[in-house]
Amino acid sequence: MNGIYLDNSATTAVCKAAADKAYDMMLHQFGNPSSLHRLGFEAEREIEAARQAVAELMGGSPAEVIFTSGGSEANNLAVFGATEGLKRRGKHVVTTAVEHASVAAACDELEKQGFEVTRLSVGADGLLTAEQIADACRPDTVLVSVMLVNNETGARFPIDKVIPLIRRKSPFAFIHSDAVQAAGKIPLSAARWGLDGMTVTAHKLHGPKGCGALYLRRGARLCPRQFGGKQQQGIRPGTEAAPFIAAFGAAIKALPSPAEQQAAFTLLRQRLIDELTDLPVVFHLPENGVPYIVNLSVPGLKSETMLHFLSERNIFVSSGSACSKGAKSSVLTAMGLPVNEIDSALRISFCHHNTVEEIDRFAKALKDAYHTLVKKG
Amino acid sequence: MNGIYLDNSATTAVCKAAADKAYDMMLHQFGNPSSLHRLGFEAEREIEAARQAVAELMGGSPAEVIFTSGGSEANNLAVFGATEGLKRRGKHVVTTAVEHASVAAACDELEKQGFEVTRLSVGADGLLTAEQIADACRPDTVLVSVMLVNNETGARFPIDKVIPLIRRKSPFAFIHSDAVQAAGKIPLSAARWGLDGMTVTAHKLHGPKGCGALYLRRGARLCPRQFGGKQQQGIRPGTEAAPFIAAFGAAIKALPSPAEQQAAFTLLRQRLIDELTDLPVVFHLPENGVPYIVNLSVPGLKSETMLHFLSERNIFVSSGSACSKGAKSSVLTAMGLPVNEIDSALRISFCHHNTVEEIDRFAKALKDAYHTLVKKG
Repeated sequence: MNGIYLDNSATTAVCKAAADKAYDMMLHQFGNPSSLHRLGFEAEREIEAARQAVAELMGGSPAEVIFTSGGSEANNLAVFGATEGLKRRGKHVVTTAVEHASVAAACDELEKQGFEVTRLSVGADGLLTAEQIADACRPDTVLVSVMLVNNETGARFPIDKVIPLIRRKSPFAFIHSDAVQAAGKIPLSAARWGLDGMTVTAHKLHGPKGCGALYLRRGARLCPRQFGGKQQQGIRPGTEAAPFIAAFGAAIKALPSPAEQQAAFTLLRQRLIDELTDLPVVFHLPENGVPYIVNLSVPGLKSETMLHFLSERNIFVSSGSACSKGAKSSVLTAMGLPVNEIDSALRISFCHHNTVEEIDRFAKALKDAYHTLVKKG
Repeated sequence: MNGIYLDNSATTAVCKAAADKAYDMMLHQFGNPSSLHRLGFEAEREIEAARQAVAELMGGSPAEVIFTSGGSEANNLAVFGATEGLKRRGKHVVTTAVEHASVAAACDELEKQGFEVTRLSVGADGLLTAEQIADACRPDTVLVSVMLVNNETGARFPIDKVIPLIRRKSPFAFIHSDAVQAAGKIPLSAARWGLDGMTVTAHKLHGPKGCGALYLRRGARLCPRQFGGKQQQGIRPGTEAAPFIAAFGAAIKALPSPAEQQAAFTLLRQRLIDELTDLPVVFHLPENGVPYIVNLSVPGLKSETMLHFLSERNIFVSSGSACSKGAKSSVLTAMGLPVNEIDSALRISFCHHNTVEEIDRFAKALKDAYHTLVKKG
């Protein structure tokens, strides 16, 4: 790709190791993992190796990894699978007002089916507190689904800190976290934290689109959403997407350590802030936010106009969640930001390939845009 | 791959054109199809080109193609999505006793939810008649799901011929066919036949595992099973598996015409029959069966032993559906075959790369197995 790609929270370039692995699997190790011959066994071995890598990524054991077609399916499986299994215990759900569309829309659907959904809002600082989560929990709460890192602002939500408290108040609850924006960049410890479910997806960490996973704690009750063969303990049947699962594993192994990445991201973020001091930029940076997501506004400069201006210069950022495709940000709205900040929001998101030089070129382009589109506009 | 691959109904080798397309997409055209910048638009264009190819494969229009993670998801979406949308009209379902596990298990689940399921059995000849299907339909039938080609015997079921009759008897029914074993080898005309839904998957026609599609007739009522973003008309949200969808399209374009393939398969099948005349082989060849699936038994020679014997000689066949992984064949059982034929069944399935020489080598290996394992056994 020619250009500067700063939209890594939307998706990432597949790393060469992962693409090579998928390519080799497609052409050579193409057996059906359920087939009872060597080609089948080979494909199954590759899947199990990837399962090990994903288990390590999530902080669980291989038997706790259920491969899905991506984050949306894993989130849907957690939300519907858990509530279906527990609906006799209660019909109350706790989530946030700023989840990814695949959790938010699944909870909307639950509501239509007679569940009561409490949607916690973030404060003006973009944060959610452990108390907010715990306070919302009741004896009839059967699902708590709170993301680990918000996809638009990078705010960290303290679901990992509050699990013992939730267990006390809601002994039947399935506790789930969408860790799609955290995986690969932040250490995950699903088992140690005590989660029942956790979602990750390959394409946010240099694996292919079309492959994700749900961590499912051993013993946690979850009804399948898809029915068929005996694959994946019957929880998610269907021929496994062997080449992409193997590529997922390869992508994980090719990642630098979270600590290395964090150090580099922190430098990039500071550079970006420093380079933009002479523009009237408003940064929306939650205090505990991850350093690889920077949400900012240049009031007067409409997001869509900016995306277009930058895209023509081969610089790629976004205005928010790709899955919302241009709809007004629910996160920034929940934070109570003024409309002109919401309408001009840009999300810049890094991966470990980004360089200081790229940040400088992006900052220069933003200044060009400001002087071309606002001052002369 | 070294060896002779005759298990193409389980899965196929991905063709080079498709693998190259996926590889290029992963490394270079990696944008999120929902992103509002050039990389996003490029990925979206690739998806739309593939959608056109899949539409032509199925005999529908591009707007009628819903990409899924594979055949199992497409079958589940059809079965649950249709009945959910129509349950106020009735709770009766017509299917067969020999569907793929993903239709069969979904119908079992419907039954638990209070639906009544009529499962049509095949005769001793492996066939199902149009009358059987029509006779089972009632005014309260809301789903008819009958596969086009049986995955174990190759029998063709006449769902394509009987649709006007079903419509008269069951005006509300969603009419679905699992065409996974037909697609790419037999011309499909979903729209002309009048189907509401039809399932295909990439990995049976030299595309990658992890990508399938549901034909959904314009105007047919179907509730989504997955909730999230706005992708695919909201019927199947989630970031599209762009590289594999594009590869699916490339695989379709690389296929020889069905007529060419049929001619070649017919020769291969005849060769196989001719080469095995001096073995006590029982062929299970339905009269109208497709020429690329040959089901046979060598009584006394257990399927599993044979698979192992052949696999050690780099020859790959199966004992039945890969998704059933060694369980006793429901199809051969429904046909009322003697146990020693069921226990020794082998499915040999061709693709257009198979040659007469490979058939001869397979036949020789089968004779070796017979003389080694049965006569001396």
